[in-house]
Amino acid sequence: MTCNAISLRDIRSFHVGGATVELTGQPRQDVRVSPDAAPRTVDLNGHYVSGQLYAQHFVLDRPRSDVPILFWHGGAMTGVTWETTPDDRPGWSQVFLRHGHDVVVSDAVERGRASWAPFPQIYDSPPLFRTAEDAWYLFRMGAAEDFARRRPFAGQRFPIARFDQLCAQFVPRWTTNAKATIAAYMQLVARFDRVIIVAHSQGGWFAQSLAARLPDRVAAVVLLEPAGAPNLAPEEMARAARVPHLYVWGDNCDSHPAWRPYKSDATAYSESLRSRGGTVDTLDLPKHGILGNSHMPMMDDNSDEIASMILGWLARTRD
Amino acid sequence: MTCNAISLRDIRSFHVGGATVELTGQPRQDVRVSPDAAPRTVDLNGHYVSGQLYAQHFVLDRPRSDVPILFWHGGAMTGVTWETTPDDRPGWSQVFLRHGHDVVVSDAVERGRASWAPFPQIYDSPPLFRTAEDAWYLFRMGAAEDFARRRPFAGQRFPIARFDQLCAQFVPRWTTNAKATIAAYMQLVARFDRVIIVAHSQGGWFAQSLAARLPDRVAAVVLLEPAGAPNLAPEEMARAARVPHLYVWGDNCDSHPAWRPYKSDATAYSESLRSRGGTVDTLDLPKHGILGNSHMPMMDDNSDEIASMILGWLARTRD
Repeated sequence: MTCNAISLRDIRSFHVGGATVELTGQPRQDVRVSPDAAPRTVDLNGHYVSGQLYAQHFVLDRPRSDVPILFWHGGAMTGVTWETTPDDRPGWSQVFLRHGHDVVVSDAVERGRASWAPFPQIYDSPPLFRTAEDAWYLFRMGAAEDFARRRPFAGQRFPIARFDQLCAQFVPRWTTNAKATIAAYMQLVARFDRVIIVAHSQGGWFAQSLAARLPDRVAAVVLLEPAGAPNLAPEEMARAARVPHLYVWGDNCDSHPAWRPYKSDATAYSESLRSRGGTVDTLDLPKHGILGNSHMPMMDDNSDEIASMILGWLARTRD
Repeated sequence: MTCNAISLRDIRSFHVGGATVELTGQPRQDVRVSPDAAPRTVDLNGHYVSGQLYAQHFVLDRPRSDVPILFWHGGAMTGVTWETTPDDRPGWSQVFLRHGHDVVVSDAVERGRASWAPFPQIYDSPPLFRTAEDAWYLFRMGAAEDFARRRPFAGQRFPIARFDQLCAQFVPRWTTNAKATIAAYMQLVARFDRVIIVAHSQGGWFAQSLAARLPDRVAAVVLLEPAGAPNLAPEEMARAARVPHLYVWGDNCDSHPAWRPYKSDATAYSESLRSRGGTVDTLDLPKHGILGNSHMPMMDDNSDEIASMILGWLARTRD
């Protein structure tokens, strides 16, 4: 065996959460399913599983940590976020595996392999789609007006030449499945003794809620630019404060109309946790002299360095 | 290292194929993206990547074969088909890895992590959805009228108690993306020197076409109950005949209104290849005394046995 190989005892995947829903009263259709095959009558009436998430679980042969890392992607994305960077370097799922953690890569409810249900019959509305322009602006690649010529912010660390590979990863999303999402992740976490959650953007919003609900199961949460913070009742905040939280922020947040309020909300939340005795740390990268990070630190050119900082925090915090 | 561990040099994923498409003239919307966050203006106008597929590539540290296995799922499904059986046994991706093949697990265009594009703006129509009833009947779990009480065919090998876990894997599908699908898989195959394609159902229909297009890249195709066969021109058939084909059929096909014609089409196609000197074999399981297989041999209780038969055929055919 090459000394740097990843030795796995198991690679498992499964869907968890959701419920069976019945659809009735839909018209039948005759559909040609394969181009050269005869049309087939398709009947949409019937039972569906809706609200499940998908998880792929990499089980190391000899883990050096007894707590797996649960990766939770952001809005309009899937577990692909963590797998390979757009410019083909190892993603954090591999980095954390090589560091001795079992890894669980999830696709949230309605995203990617988790699947989605018919609308308006089961979901109440059509999905939203992420455009390249939207990502350019929201993920802080550059100024909105510089999208057409792909001129990034000075010192940009995201591999801009592979921006289209990032856009190929986007999936449609709904904004009305928060309850199902939390419920499915609670079931996922309950499958493990304890997990460390590493969550990005919208996933970070959810992960903060989950830590407050399952403080005995969540060993720590790492929040990569969470899209704000939940409004929790005092007793929920007290539970959340039992879980160590690390907030990570890239460059150009404070001047960005979307990220300034998200960061401000999350910072107020983190201060509230700290006031309750919680272990809360913030890795505001520009304040550490690390400039140029986009909204996608797991894909930026210093992704290995940021992973190391997170692993260092986990080691210190859990000692 | 435990002797039965899988030692991987790399676990990579990427999207391949597709093109950038621009959408214009769509109305702007104000949307609440996180439950406790302020609404955000969402603008659907802009650029999308459409027509890409997703692939996850497991690279063994010491492969025993120099040809990777490309797994291609069927209609309304994703690469999850190959990962873990619904009753939690190792799927064929793991079985083939342990047998020394590198493995590429794909999500076809519009399915799972491959993502899909807005309709009717980019795709021309809404998707189809697979109901539990549809799967019960089409995947030959039991008679249609026995769905409600979940009474399977006598001797059924699919783990019926976990039928809902199968249903949780279904994703919506379109029937109008065949051209984009073939184009994306041609780009995927071109990334490798040669591949062996193991394809299921609708994926089998596509894989037969792909073998005819890239006979020098496709070392063999294994077709698990393909949904019929393409209509190819004589010169395409001549190219296809250079690729060894193995057809695998489960139980109860010949009495099934959907599967009888698919099997008959595929059998006529395979005979045409054989008449052109092609290496074509058929593993009609009931004729070998192996009864009770559903449409999902990679999930049935004898999935390991069928994998062994396929691996044996590959070894004999490629000697």
